[in-house]
Amino acid sequence: MHTFLERVNSPQDIKKLTFAELTLLAGEIRSLIIETVARSGGHLAPNLGVVELTLALHKVFDSPQDKMIWDVGHQSYVHKILTGRGGALHELRQMGGISGFPKRSESEHDAFATGHASTSISAAVGMAVARDMSGQDNHVLAVIGDGSLTGGEAYEALNHAGHIGTKLIVVLNDNEMSIARNVGAMSGYLAKIRTAPGYAKVKQDLEHLLRRIPSIGDRMVQTAERLKDSVRHFFIPGMLFEELGFTYLGPIDGHDLADLTGLLEKAKQMSGPVVLHVLTRKGKGYAPAERNADIFHGVGPFHAATGEIIKKDGPPTYTRVFGDTLLTLAEADKNIAAITAAMPEGTGLKAFAGRFPARFFDVGIAEPHAVTMAAAMACEGKKPVIALYSTFGQRAYDQVLHDVCLQELPVVLALDRAGLVGEDGPTHHGVFDYSYLRHIPNLICMAPKDEGELRHMLYTALQGNRPVALRYPRGSGIGIGVDLSEPLQVLPVGQAEVLRLGRDVNLVAIGSMVNPCQQAAAQLQEQGIDAGVVNARFVKPLDRSVIHLLAETGPLITVEENVLAGGFGSAVLECLSDQGLAGSRVLRLGLPDEFIEHGAHALLLKKYGLDANGIARQTAGFLRKLFPE
Amino acid sequence: MHTFLERVNSPQDIKKLTFAELTLLAGEIRSLIIETVARSGGHLAPNLGVVELTLALHKVFDSPQDKMIWDVGHQSYVHKILTGRGGALHELRQMGGISGFPKRSESEHDAFATGHASTSISAAVGMAVARDMSGQDNHVLAVIGDGSLTGGEAYEALNHAGHIGTKLIVVLNDNEMSIARNVGAMSGYLAKIRTAPGYAKVKQDLEHLLRRIPSIGDRMVQTAERLKDSVRHFFIPGMLFEELGFTYLGPIDGHDLADLTGLLEKAKQMSGPVVLHVLTRKGKGYAPAERNADIFHGVGPFHAATGEIIKKDGPPTYTRVFGDTLLTLAEADKNIAAITAAMPEGTGLKAFAGRFPARFFDVGIAEPHAVTMAAAMACEGKKPVIALYSTFGQRAYDQVLHDVCLQELPVVLALDRAGLVGEDGPTHHGVFDYSYLRHIPNLICMAPKDEGELRHMLYTALQGNRPVALRYPRGSGIGIGVDLSEPLQVLPVGQAEVLRLGRDVNLVAIGSMVNPCQQAAAQLQEQGIDAGVVNARFVKPLDRSVIHLLAETGPLITVEENVLAGGFGSAVLECLSDQGLAGSRVLRLGLPDEFIEHGAHALLLKKYGLDANGIARQTAGFLRKLFPE
Repeated sequence: MHTFLERVNSPQDIKKLTFAELTLLAGEIRSLIIETVARSGGHLAPNLGVVELTLALHKVFDSPQDKMIWDVGHQSYVHKILTGRGGALHELRQMGGISGFPKRSESEHDAFATGHASTSISAAVGMAVARDMSGQDNHVLAVIGDGSLTGGEAYEALNHAGHIGTKLIVVLNDNEMSIARNVGAMSGYLAKIRTAPGYAKVKQDLEHLLRRIPSIGDRMVQTAERLKDSVRHFFIPGMLFEELGFTYLGPIDGHDLADLTGLLEKAKQMSGPVVLHVLTRKGKGYAPAERNADIFHGVGPFHAATGEIIKKDGPPTYTRVFGDTLLTLAEADKNIAAITAAMPEGTGLKAFAGRFPARFFDVGIAEPHAVTMAAAMACEGKKPVIALYSTFGQRAYDQVLHDVCLQELPVVLALDRAGLVGEDGPTHHGVFDYSYLRHIPNLICMAPKDEGELRHMLYTALQGNRPVALRYPRGSGIGIGVDLSEPLQVLPVGQAEVLRLGRDVNLVAIGSMVNPCQQAAAQLQEQGIDAGVVNARFVKPLDRSVIHLLAETGPLITVEENVLAGGFGSAVLECLSDQGLAGSRVLRLGLPDEFIEHGAHALLLKKYGLDANGIARQTAGFLRKLFPE
Repeated sequence: MHTFLERVNSPQDIKKLTFAELTLLAGEIRSLIIETVARSGGHLAPNLGVVELTLALHKVFDSPQDKMIWDVGHQSYVHKILTGRGGALHELRQMGGISGFPKRSESEHDAFATGHASTSISAAVGMAVARDMSGQDNHVLAVIGDGSLTGGEAYEALNHAGHIGTKLIVVLNDNEMSIARNVGAMSGYLAKIRTAPGYAKVKQDLEHLLRRIPSIGDRMVQTAERLKDSVRHFFIPGMLFEELGFTYLGPIDGHDLADLTGLLEKAKQMSGPVVLHVLTRKGKGYAPAERNADIFHGVGPFHAATGEIIKKDGPPTYTRVFGDTLLTLAEADKNIAAITAAMPEGTGLKAFAGRFPARFFDVGIAEPHAVTMAAAMACEGKKPVIALYSTFGQRAYDQVLHDVCLQELPVVLALDRAGLVGEDGPTHHGVFDYSYLRHIPNLICMAPKDEGELRHMLYTALQGNRPVALRYPRGSGIGIGVDLSEPLQVLPVGQAEVLRLGRDVNLVAIGSMVNPCQQAAAQLQEQGIDAGVVNARFVKPLDRSVIHLLAETGPLITVEENVLAGGFGSAVLECLSDQGLAGSRVLRLGLPDEFIEHGAHALLLKKYGLDANGIARQTAGFLRKLFPE
């Protein structure tokens, strides 16, 4: 079946194949990826788009001596297949299996781990200068999408690379998409290049010709140089990159193996920094993914034959409830605006964008800009809501502190995908936000126990006049018992909800951990332990009086889907210490001081003792230790 | 003396003045600023460079309806003078006086607070879209230096602004400097524009002419458009900005009031985003500052007549000791490299840059890129040391976590100006680093008790093979009793230094707080309280056994120059809780959950009870509460 795939165990094996054979191999790779992702989910469209590009890269360059850095990294499946990991693809993204992103510990061919966007050129600069320091001559390549090029760090690196002038190759994988359609002026610029007639081929002749323009006299030299630039601009589409010190090559068809290898060979020979502009199609070779590249960007299981997504029945996602609620609130308040960093679909804002295009802003993969921009909107009386994934919010830590909170501006930061995200793993788990947010003065930080409370919290955030961070998990809500039609209420800021006071012990849970704590309490009851449950609601301001009350009642267990260091439980300890409540018996449950691997969410919760069983078991154990028979 | 200054109480007063009067006013403003900064220090050269520009802005635009946003904000003194704060300038940057940066609470003319670089265009976009949402028509201006243009957030905002196409004006204040000479390919590009002949004036005619090129036929239109672009590129220097969707105006002499007002009037009339390229000279009008713009960027007191800096005798600064030690270590280890984000002088790396140019990297104001680049260098066996100010390290929180620590790479983050920095105030205090760093897995976080220990810590960091953050304060070391010639030693990671065990109480101090704690202990001794002092050295990993020992001995006071939330004391509470040491009496001293104002460092320490007296007083008070008579 996979005739050629079976012959490829390392990049060396690629080099022997003819273009015809490589084309057949490309087809086999596409089938393997479609089968795999159809079965267990993953990033489909990005990988189908780079099959030929990855083949060409490994044909022309020598990994691992030459360093290939994959921006974001969700398009590295082909690279994984070609570097000896095809056989492991069936357990991709599963616990104990290979990662969906490049990972140094997984293979010597993964030069640099990626996950967050726009780091690849920085990493390439680092590897290039390290090479120069060592007097080596290996190649360094960053493969970056046009979407990632909207991130400021990519520009910082281009600016630095163009300045130092050392050799490195930036492969611009231009598919006109971020996850959704790409935005920004740079994207418009690239589109202009794409539609320009094929002048690229005459460039070499032209350069040759231009070199003959005599350079005589001071002013003449300058004018001649400017004339050259001007003529170049007519013929060479990538002038913007050339102005930044790069040699621009392209644009070329990223699905034509001969063109690709030809231009990569050329780039290999050049000195100094090179941008190689490659046009690809996301989802290439699989019609459903070509048609709906955003839906098939990252996708759950689907029927490979038809492309029909296998729907899971169940309650609506937190994302959906957030988006619906914001839309409803925006109908009534024209000052509400929504901002996304290239994820209108992922953050549930697509309907909002359709309904209120003038109040919706997709800024590109540019979290820092999103947050400062929102701060300025708030200065002018608007109510901006920025929806980000928790892990990407890390990018804007300084802006949240310096632009929003220092000025005490009413910006709402909606952090989706908070807590463990499952299969995307350590680069994407949103398990640091309580810790990176709660020490910022003036910020209110809250997390709902369920999708119903999310509605009230968003309403509360928009009613107040202060900076708010609101975090909620990936995936479906609780469903049973949650009423999504309840009238919206303003929750009292800094007040916990005591669900039930326990005689023996109290579980103080925040956000996603309230529900498992209620289940744990039921289990404990069966063991004869009367455990209460408190829904903390606010990490900041913490409900000091409830914490005080509980501490005086008896042992107290804090439970959070966040690292323990500096997190919610840590805030409880601080609160107790400040109130002179030494002697309180507190057990903090949460995530340990390590990066958490990828795997199904439920499996990870179980492993780290944050499912109902784990919480009940640890609570009972703590009580046994406190009160031995 | 200040004839014209006395007549200026609001921007309205500027509008009545003739160019001749404005020129005289400019001279008076320069004198006032030089006098003021000579007396009490501040940012001199940036302000002298923008006198005419600020006058022109207030002549042409109407603040506060029109919004002026000053990037970084250290060049806002002239703006403060023109907006009614000239009389308050004598107490600039002093406790209770006006801030050295724009501050919304200080004046309606300060549209947006700044301090960290590269935020102004983002803020301008926010204010522009807010204006559009409200159907208003005021102007929004961002004044940004070419240095700040190296920061990625500025590019993110340009990219977004060019995309949405709404009206805003970016005034590019190009002085070829960051704090030091500006770096980067963009800087090279701007230099090319500066030296181009004065074609700008024919632009209008040209545009007119180009509009006449007939647009006929599909392909012809495209070719005609490309021809227009090409010809424009010959005549218009700012093509790069035009490609990003901006109209480019300039370059013009930023000290010519007539040219400035003329071009600002023109910009005012245009629709869509405009870049106005203004050439200024840092330190303009004061010869010592023109000659040494980097020294006079931010400066302490000096003799106004001569420009001679008033030297304070005293021990060397931490910055100096850091730079000297790194240089020594680099002599012996060719893998050591140094990275700065536009602050070679401020971070003590100037000598290193001179001695090892091939191992020294000034990346521009680009902290995210600096950190990712360092991570990649570490992948290749190098030992990069990134020297940043603690407050700017906030910009790279995600990169430290995602690129360095997740991959467990041996990068050393040297965080200078940690703790309270004094007169620069809330935008610059480095009081969050323990909190934003200590929850990151795999990171070692340490702080020396004095400049001697800084040497050993840097050595220790470079000997290990793990990510390290090392924070130390602004200004002079301790001096007395510190031996800077001691052979370098590797300190045992995670081990505190017990300076003296106390019978009644123990002060566990980190970094800059060890010395005041020793003085406090001496004071307590006189009051009959036997107080020990422990130098914690490591916030992470914490010395659990010493903490255990102390907690069993008696009350424990943690002392840190950092916010209490999530900081060092918080780590001690977590450690005690984890070890089941409930019942420990702990008092945490540090900074409260608020942004700390500007003022002299000693005054701020006193106010927040972190000087020796404050520590002794609070310790004694805590003991009285624990053990009432």
